Amino acid sequence: MTYRDTVAAIAPLDQAAMDAARERQAQLTKPNGSLGRLEELSIQLAGITGRECPRMARKVVITCAGDHGVVAEGVSAFPQEVTPQMVANILAGGAAVSVLARQAGARLVVVDAGVAAQLPPHPSLYALKVAPGTRNLAQGPAMTREEAIRAVEAGIAAFEAEYAQGLDVVATGEMGIGNTTPATAIVAALTGRPVPQLTGHGTGIDDEGMRRKIAAIERGLAVNRPNSADALDVLAKVGGFEIGAIAGVVLAAAARRVPVVVDGYITTSGAMIAAGLCHTAAHFIIASHRSVEVGHQAMWDYLATQPLLDLNLHLGEGTGAVLAMHLVDAACRILGEMATFSSAGVSGRA
Amino acid sequence: MTYRDTVAAIAPLDQAAMDAARERQAQLTKPNGSLGRLEELSIQLAGITGRECPRMARKVVITCAGDHGVVAEGVSAFPQEVTPQMVANILAGGAAVSVLARQAGARLVVVDAGVAAQLPPHPSLYALKVAPGTRNLAQGPAMTREEAIRAVEAGIAAFEAEYAQGLDVVATGEMGIGNTTPATAIVAALTGRPVPQLTGHGTGIDDEGMRRKIAAIERGLAVNRPNSADALDVLAKVGGFEIGAIAGVVLAAAARRVPVVVDGYITTSGAMIAAGLCHTAAHFIIASHRSVEVGHQAMWDYLATQPLLDLNLHLGEGTGAVLAMHLVDAACRILGEMATFSSAGVSGRA
Repeated sequence: MTYRDTVAAIAPLDQAAMDAARERQAQLTKPNGSLGRLEELSIQLAGITGRECPRMARKVVITCAGDHGVVAEGVSAFPQEVTPQMVANILAGGAAVSVLARQAGARLVVVDAGVAAQLPPHPSLYALKVAPGTRNLAQGPAMTREEAIRAVEAGIAAFEAEYAQGLDVVATGEMGIGNTTPATAIVAALTGRPVPQLTGHGTGIDDEGMRRKIAAIERGLAVNRPNSADALDVLAKVGGFEIGAIAGVVLAAAARRVPVVVDGYITTSGAMIAAGLCHTAAHFIIASHRSVEVGHQAMWDYLATQPLLDLNLHLGEGTGAVLAMHLVDAACRILGEMATFSSAGVSGRA
Repeated sequence: MTYRDTVAAIAPLDQAAMDAARERQAQLTKPNGSLGRLEELSIQLAGITGRECPRMARKVVITCAGDHGVVAEGVSAFPQEVTPQMVANILAGGAAVSVLARQAGARLVVVDAGVAAQLPPHPSLYALKVAPGTRNLAQGPAMTREEAIRAVEAGIAAFEAEYAQGLDVVATGEMGIGNTTPATAIVAALTGRPVPQLTGHGTGIDDEGMRRKIAAIERGLAVNRPNSADALDVLAKVGGFEIGAIAGVVLAAAARRVPVVVDGYITTSGAMIAAGLCHTAAHFIIASHRSVEVGHQAMWDYLATQPLLDLNLHLGEGTGAVLAMHLVDAACRILGEMATFSSAGVSGRA
């Protein structure tokens, strides 16, 4: 599906389903409001799915991978070869997201949107490489506008293939050495906030590396002058292929009325690109957690949502999102499975 | 088992297992520390269980129920008959904790430590009633010291019976109309903080009810003069039977080196009683969440621990604890199931 058709298919939350869910919450055998954010979440999920009692049985984590020319600037603590190594580790079941997806009973798939290595075929790998890594965003555009569209459409294609197999809720993940740099460039471009306020230590770079990273991002913004009113331009000039693919997953999920649980710093930058392409898509996002990465809260503020978890995570891969899926599932089960005051014969307030 | 034997069996955390777990975390295929609180939690769980890679397969929620003479002061929004009605609802599978325990794959049992009604037998109900409700703590001791010990030992007996069936992690829950009142009296007695700073709206009492509640607690403390250095005295004078039973569950879990996930305001007051009886027991506690109830954070501070979740919950029953069990399970799976850099052939830092 093209990204234009996908955007055109996105409709607002279903207010009638939200009203029905809100009314149902008030009948359940608990003081109304006592399940706090789980209750609010259940109402959002009703609005997303259009069902008074949504079910979240079929879970999928889509982890998008890509490499980044900007690593030439010395912005990462790990070498680029780690991207394909970690993709293999994820697919073999040994990565953190693999372990947590198994726990959650979620299918886990990887999208190769632009890894700078040839990846061996695997039944859980979508081979949708746009190019073997972006160009160095500190020296010019990371990719062409055409490539940006192909990255978004890679995410849409992967989502659609998973949707066809049955899917109630999707989590976003990413893998790409150096990708906190394009993510920071995106949030700086879209929010206008100063780069030093948004730049964090990523996977653990030292202070000297931080200075290089800030300089690379500032140079990238100065050289490329991304147009903040045009999310595809921002993605093309200072983004990444996996970030574009994540934007595609978010758009496709919104178009299919599937809740999309967004993970950490990098996938949230993808969600910001999606929201830039279609503001309504943001309503289909569940904010999973607040990362240690310093600019993350600014991203949630931009998306007008608040994260469910705050566990000092900064790993990515989809780890925080798959943890939050337990809460998404819990919220729906509360709505669908709890007794009401009348069905259980429980007295109301005195 | 007597409470004295249980306390005598409690030993410190296993430092060697914690060191081994810490070292293992540094070998796993992720930047060290990037799973934040999950990593810290995994190390605590290693110390609790004495195993480098603990497993949390067998989960049990123990919800302790009791009634409170202090409801005569008009301190609750719901009538006392709701306690046995909700016990029946929990056992029938329709309460919030029932739904969430099913989701988590946890067994759920109820301890009748002092409900003011005769409860029909049920395979998941421990009939260990000390008395049909406490006396009114605003007018004199809620129970005798002997009754307080029997309440604690009811919790120990229930834990031991579940432990015999196989149990890796236990969550505490409670049900008892009016029980935020004794919980607040306990935290005020043990911390010395002023009652109005600690008193919240419970299940939803109005401002007039709040004034009655504060007055009842202040009168109870003045009339009974609980000795803050003697946790059994505090429990007897201003506590509750289900709160004593929860203290017993915490002590028994610590004695058996089983992590105990403590829920909201009321069960945390039970954990404070347990810590008063044996300071080391506090190290076996996992703080599940920060309740909306205003005094809850003061309790976590007293126990020198910080909650994992902050979801505006204020339901009790064990709901927040069972939600946090997903994180406890996740922390152990990360430690036990992730690949290491060498096993997965992933490069380290550049």
